[in-house]
Amino acid sequence: MPRKIQLSKTRPSQVRPVSVAAINRAPIHPGSLLSTADLSVDDLCSLLQLADVLEVEDPLRRDKRLLKRRISLLFYESSTRTRTSFELAAKALGADTSLVSAQSSSIEKGESLKDTGITLRSLGAECIILRSPFSGAPYLLAETTGLPILNAGDGMHEHPSQALLDLRTILNHLKSGPKVTEKTLAGVTVTICGDIFHSRVARSNALLLPQLGVRVILCGPPPLLPEAATRLVSGIEIERNFDRALAQSDVVMMLRIQAERLAGLSLDLEEYKTRYQANVERIASYAPKALIMHPGPIIRGLEITSEVADGPQSAIADQVRNGVAIRMALILRALTPTESANRKSGVKVGKRDS
Amino acid sequence: MPRKIQLSKTRPSQVRPVSVAAINRAPIHPGSLLSTADLSVDDLCSLLQLADVLEVEDPLRRDKRLLKRRISLLFYESSTRTRTSFELAAKALGADTSLVSAQSSSIEKGESLKDTGITLRSLGAECIILRSPFSGAPYLLAETTGLPILNAGDGMHEHPSQALLDLRTILNHLKSGPKVTEKTLAGVTVTICGDIFHSRVARSNALLLPQLGVRVILCGPPPLLPEAATRLVSGIEIERNFDRALAQSDVVMMLRIQAERLAGLSLDLEEYKTRYQANVERIASYAPKALIMHPGPIIRGLEITSEVADGPQSAIADQVRNGVAIRMALILRALTPTESANRKSGVKVGKRDS
Amino acid sequence: MPRKIQLSKTRPSQVRPVSVAAINRAPIHPGSLLSTADLSVDDLCSLLQLADVLEVEDPLRRDKRLLKRRISLLFYESSTRTRTSFELAAKALGADTSLVSAQSSSIEKGESLKDTGITLRSLGAECIILRSPFSGAPYLLAETTGLPILNAGDGMHEHPSQALLDLRTILNHLKSGPKVTEKTLAGVTVTICGDIFHSRVARSNALLLPQLGVRVILCGPPPLLPEAATRLVSGIEIERNFDRALAQSDVVMMLRIQAERLAGLSLDLEEYKTRYQANVERIASYAPKALIMHPGPIIRGLEITSEVADGPQSAIADQVRNGVAIRMALILRALTPTESANRKSGVKVGKRDS
Repeated sequence: MPRKIQLSKTRPSQVRPVSVAAINRAPIHPGSLLSTADLSVDDLCSLLQLADVLEVEDPLRRDKRLLKRRISLLFYESSTRTRTSFELAAKALGADTSLVSAQSSSIEKGESLKDTGITLRSLGAECIILRSPFSGAPYLLAETTGLPILNAGDGMHEHPSQALLDLRTILNHLKSGPKVTEKTLAGVTVTICGDIFHSRVARSNALLLPQLGVRVILCGPPPLLPEAATRLVSGIEIERNFDRALAQSDVVMMLRIQAERLAGLSLDLEEYKTRYQANVERIASYAPKALIMHPGPIIRGLEITSEVADGPQSAIADQVRNGVAIRMALILRALTPTESANRKSGVKVGKRDS
Repeated sequence: MPRKIQLSKTRPSQVRPVSVAAINRAPIHPGSLLSTADLSVDDLCSLLQLADVLEVEDPLRRDKRLLKRRISLLFYESSTRTRTSFELAAKALGADTSLVSAQSSSIEKGESLKDTGITLRSLGAECIILRSPFSGAPYLLAETTGLPILNAGDGMHEHPSQALLDLRTILNHLKSGPKVTEKTLAGVTVTICGDIFHSRVARSNALLLPQLGVRVILCGPPPLLPEAATRLVSGIEIERNFDRALAQSDVVMMLRIQAERLAGLSLDLEEYKTRYQANVERIASYAPKALIMHPGPIIRGLEITSEVADGPQSAIADQVRNGVAIRMALILRALTPTESANRKSGVKVGKRDS
Repeated sequence: MPRKIQLSKTRPSQVRPVSVAAINRAPIHPGSLLSTADLSVDDLCSLLQLADVLEVEDPLRRDKRLLKRRISLLFYESSTRTRTSFELAAKALGADTSLVSAQSSSIEKGESLKDTGITLRSLGAECIILRSPFSGAPYLLAETTGLPILNAGDGMHEHPSQALLDLRTILNHLKSGPKVTEKTLAGVTVTICGDIFHSRVARSNALLLPQLGVRVILCGPPPLLPEAATRLVSGIEIERNFDRALAQSDVVMMLRIQAERLAGLSLDLEEYKTRYQANVERIASYAPKALIMHPGPIIRGLEITSEVADGPQSAIADQVRNGVAIRMALILRALTPTESANRKSGVKVGKRDS
């Protein structure tokens, strides 16, 4: 008898427990990546090492790794960088990809996510990369198809591949190799600033980074950063004053501000810019050596100025570049069981040197 | 001097004669599949055998069959399963595909089907897979381009690759091999239930299955199933009572109900469900061993319940799987003349053992 | 400090000087093609020879030329023929392509062209093919990414690959080989008829053809062809009477009439057809041997009749075919520095026999 999963656009913190409790079908495939919370430090180590290997591998050799394997991209929201990044990563490994987007599919005809997933599996998909406006949707897809699912962003819940590429960007910046431990980033402070409340990127990073010792500061005005956010991960801090946060930070992650959301929250855009914009004066005064990150797309002149986005401290282009390497690793891990051995809840077989 | 083809969204039964009479340009390429009525039993045999071979062939070897050949998908209607199925089938054979959809093309600018076809041919397309809202459109495209055209659904007329995958699903279920004859399915009764009037799937199956001995029963209320439907193929039957139809059936094909069409027909949805929904009680009572099929996308809780769609009698996922195999065979046949030898109206060369 | 480029939909003739003056970032990559004005006769020679080689090359060998190289198509306007033509050309050379279109991307979220370009470069794109409604956009993209950019049509400015394929069509028709000189087309008269004002195709051809000795006549009513057009290239002529223009022409290029634009100009459609339509009577009377061209999509019965479009003088299908060959040459030149040696402003290395 089929059970319903409660898909929600509201409180992200409740999503996972509810969805897991409510469903009991196929076990989640160990090649899946649904949340950064599922990754152990050993997993991170394996993925980062694999990304290093794949990034510099000869393209013609890399092309043979997943030659003619089938990967589906199921995108219910539009996306340039994430979709293209996953697509290029899959093709770099030799896989055939097929894109199903909300614009041109039976999704329009009201077909359920479950049925679309089963259809893609029957069509031969060996892995589905899903972007959905619904928090928790990747769990439903994983449990109804039994396939490895890569979460490419689900509602206000998570965007784990983004957090991984952010991690790789930070490690590269610190000249730290892929063999991470619980203490690799001890002493490193990362401030995430902006619309924390709506951000799956913030959430995924806040779950991931502390595992390697990072001190995470969340920054933003109350409407975009409720006090309850500290309950997300133990030890997480809130600092409302951006200048004070910057003064303590080695890394600053700026989040995109979507004007239409601010409007609903009766938040003044000019005041927001005055208090929270990453501009040259502020960065020079309070964080002249910090790495400046942004998941993109950026709104120049709003949360970040062009001078900062294009300046020497900016790692925005590096983040995109790291995305392809991380996603090659994720896709290879999804389709090759031995790569997925080092997982928290998986059987430990053929563990890598880490 | 150019002649006009009459494109129609109305009475499918008149489409082919009119279009054939009205046009006299290039002959239809023998690698085309426009209607199931064009397929002889020998053709079916060849296609089913080819599908068997291709389905289990080593992917790297299969990739060489049509390496770098060019196949265009021209989709004037949105579609997930049919488009992806054809696309994956073409890529599995090594072909390069290019998708032209109504959403992002000169179709918007009012270019005619004829001109789009000639353009695609000039661009190097060796085969065009067409989905169109207009009954008869594939004939126009075949006759103006001279290319092999695969009909991926045209208005209310036909959807021949769907009928072929349905046939393969039935044969597999009955453990019957691909070497079919006029009597292979003698004694088998198939009920097609639902919106027969608007369904190209129903039409293609009703034309195809009797060729192998199937007894076809059409089922549905008068607005969705006019009496005239019996004139489609001699010997076809109408049974308004779904329970009585089920009691005689080895296979049941449920069709999707589109609520907006029912509204126009002043047909009560609740009454429809009461009388025609495939649910556990009804199936258990009247057809506990029948194979339950559906071309998808399904509307759970309307024409079929989740219990039946996901239950042990359901062949829905098998249908999708068979689609890729059948479409590989169709594409290979379209591009390799020897594969298309065994056609009703073609020259018989290199006939396969059948 | 970033500078602004003035993107414009208005006066094409002012676009390039302004944009070049206003920006001073990365030098334009020599593999780019932004305007036909950048091509020397030597460049044309190289490109035409390369197109000849690639067109007849064995597909499996051609596939190795750019195997696994990455090419992005960035289309802010919908397009069938140009997009598919570039896409097939890239795939024929073995490259992996990724399409970013306005329909399904961060473009919707207001991301700037500059940021989209930087993102694509970071994702690994080695060349970007751009179609944009903004005249001058390819310059901005070239200067902010440093990548080779191929202009696939920018506003009312240029469409250089179209002019090159038109040139190849004319040369083939005249049985002239690819080793062109300043005099190859001396004595050849080409009339371009229709909405010259809005046409990037007209502009690119008017800049290109005179370089090889062509006499260009522009034809159309004043609202679609202002007197100022003669200032575009020295020696260009205007002839308002289509019949008189035809009587002098070896080649006639018809342009698409977009009814909605005519409406705005209070121009009578019936009168336009009477005076400027390419129909059998007119062509037979005044240009019975001229080559009839059209960049497509054509509007049958408006600027051209079906009899002419499908008749023996029509080169419309040839134009499309030549497009793939020309675009293979352009893409190969963009990605292989030695191929781009023979450029007007580039370093002359490995110059071809021309």
